[in-house]
Amino acid sequence: MTHDIQIVTEAELKEAVKLDLTVVDVVEQAFVALASGKVVMPPILSMDLHEANGEVDVKTAYIPGFDGFAIKVSPGFFDNPKLGLPSLNGLMILFSAKTGLVESLFLDNGYLTDVRTAAAGAVAARHLAPKTVETAGVIGTGVQARLQMIAAHLVRPFKQVLVHGRDPEKAAACAADLAKALGIEAEVMTDAAELVAQSQLVVTTTPAREPVLKSEWLHPGLHITAMGSDQAGKNEIDPSALVAADAYICDSVKQCEVSGELEAAMAAGLWNKGTPAELGEVITGARPGRISPDAITICDLTGTGAQDTAIATHVRKHFGSAGTVIQA
Amino acid sequence: MTHDIQIVTEAELKEAVKLDLTVVDVVEQAFVALASGKVVMPPILSMDLHEANGEVDVKTAYIPGFDGFAIKVSPGFFDNPKLGLPSLNGLMILFSAKTGLVESLFLDNGYLTDVRTAAAGAVAARHLAPKTVETAGVIGTGVQARLQMIAAHLVRPFKQVLVHGRDPEKAAACAADLAKALGIEAEVMTDAAELVAQSQLVVTTTPAREPVLKSEWLHPGLHITAMGSDQAGKNEIDPSALVAADAYICDSVKQCEVSGELEAAMAAGLWNKGTPAELGEVITGARPGRISPDAITICDLTGTGAQDTAIATHVRKHFGSAGTVIQA
Repeated sequence: MTHDIQIVTEAELKEAVKLDLTVVDVVEQAFVALASGKVVMPPILSMDLHEANGEVDVKTAYIPGFDGFAIKVSPGFFDNPKLGLPSLNGLMILFSAKTGLVESLFLDNGYLTDVRTAAAGAVAARHLAPKTVETAGVIGTGVQARLQMIAAHLVRPFKQVLVHGRDPEKAAACAADLAKALGIEAEVMTDAAELVAQSQLVVTTTPAREPVLKSEWLHPGLHITAMGSDQAGKNEIDPSALVAADAYICDSVKQCEVSGELEAAMAAGLWNKGTPAELGEVITGARPGRISPDAITICDLTGTGAQDTAIATHVRKHFGSAGTVIQA
Repeated sequence: MTHDIQIVTEAELKEAVKLDLTVVDVVEQAFVALASGKVVMPPILSMDLHEANGEVDVKTAYIPGFDGFAIKVSPGFFDNPKLGLPSLNGLMILFSAKTGLVESLFLDNGYLTDVRTAAAGAVAARHLAPKTVETAGVIGTGVQARLQMIAAHLVRPFKQVLVHGRDPEKAAACAADLAKALGIEAEVMTDAAELVAQSQLVVTTTPAREPVLKSEWLHPGLHITAMGSDQAGKNEIDPSALVAADAYICDSVKQCEVSGELEAAMAAGLWNKGTPAELGEVITGARPGRISPDAITICDLTGTGAQDTAIATHVRKHFGSAGTVIQA
């Protein structure tokens, strides 16, 4: 029995879906839903393609009350740049939550993942960063370094942005892009410790396997969002920092235990504060987040299927019946 | 960066891809690859949507040497028939195994899964059933009951088919369809024990959670393929039959341990024969299958991502650049 399937391309999605407060609110609702305990979110399907220097992750979540659920496939093939292709690709598929029929194919090559990931950073900053942020810093110089700062600026309109990366040229390019996008001063910092010292909000966006942010750099009134660790073995934040901070918050405790910063802290036997709060619980007030302007907070984002379902459902509403329709 | 994505609908796939010996050979190659130990096949992602009486499974596998790998999404929503919709749906996505880019979307609503599942039954019959099968029996009356018998007939051209199901009308309809499709005598059996007694090849295609085939029904020169159990808790074959048979063969031991017939036999503490052979090992001769015409053999099919990658790669080759092409 045939039915209509909507197909929307990356170009169409980029035209219509921007990283703005609407999307931040959509992703915030995903975290609120997660905190309700009623979301069904299976462990990430992860496949390592060692021969091809690639990996594929599949994420999904069912959020009660949502019309649809997304299945998101994210391939990462790290030799692609040699071929002139981006490393990250993929698509999102939206299914009816009532019938399981395919409703939409978002052929986004990872664009919606970029947006929902940055939006999660904004949600973390909104609920955990000090009310006033004069200076924000980013460790990392890729796509997410840019998008995380743009997203954070939506909720904390800082006046200055600092960029640190291993490659000075990439850091300079990232700073230039951010100065242009945000219309503020942007500076490259060769010393990551100095970047943290001057910032009230720091986001790490690296694939590091050894900490890029040391515990001794923590200072009162600092919020850190670590969004780079999304697989076992990755680690951006000094494990002892998680314990030293006044609050350590996960997007999903189950995921952070196996692929976030919490993994390293638990492996080192350092984590001794019971079950961490989740971002959704901080949003709803069920668990404390920032308890004072001087508090130190860390938010660990591994990326959840709930965000994918939330943004895909939003995009479907937004597009209505536009795009190419195939009878299949 | 945009690239071409091929989109093929269920109608186009049904026109071009038939359940024939070509497809059986393609799926056989998937099992041979699995036996090599070099296939990367992560555990199935499974999501239970209790509120919607639905479930979704995602399967994948990377087979070295294959140009692509498939990710297959199979939703099952069991209230759909009330809405006039089929319970099973879904799609297959073929990715380049070199770059991870989406190459093809097979909007098959489960058709390719039906075909590759039936083809696996033919592979099992080819390598495990007695050389001569006069009578084949099927327990179950759904789509797979028909397809499994059609597939088995390709490799064991039996003269009579017997059908048993709980619903006599459905059994009669299934028998009528098979008589027409195969041009042979087809009979409904109200007694499953009698069906097994008269058959040299039996396939079970039910969603049973209590055995529908008893151990005491086993007889010399019998092969059984159980393909209904694909989730924890399902069980078609009396657990003691697995031990009583001369050979019990898995499509994938890891999957059969958690979702096949082996699960129940292990849970009952009955399984005492070490690591079962896999179908691919029987094909290559690495492990014995049927050791004599009088032997009793059982093959347990849970459905593997390797089959999906094999058939999707085959379909891609078969279609070439046909279908609808979208730049995305």
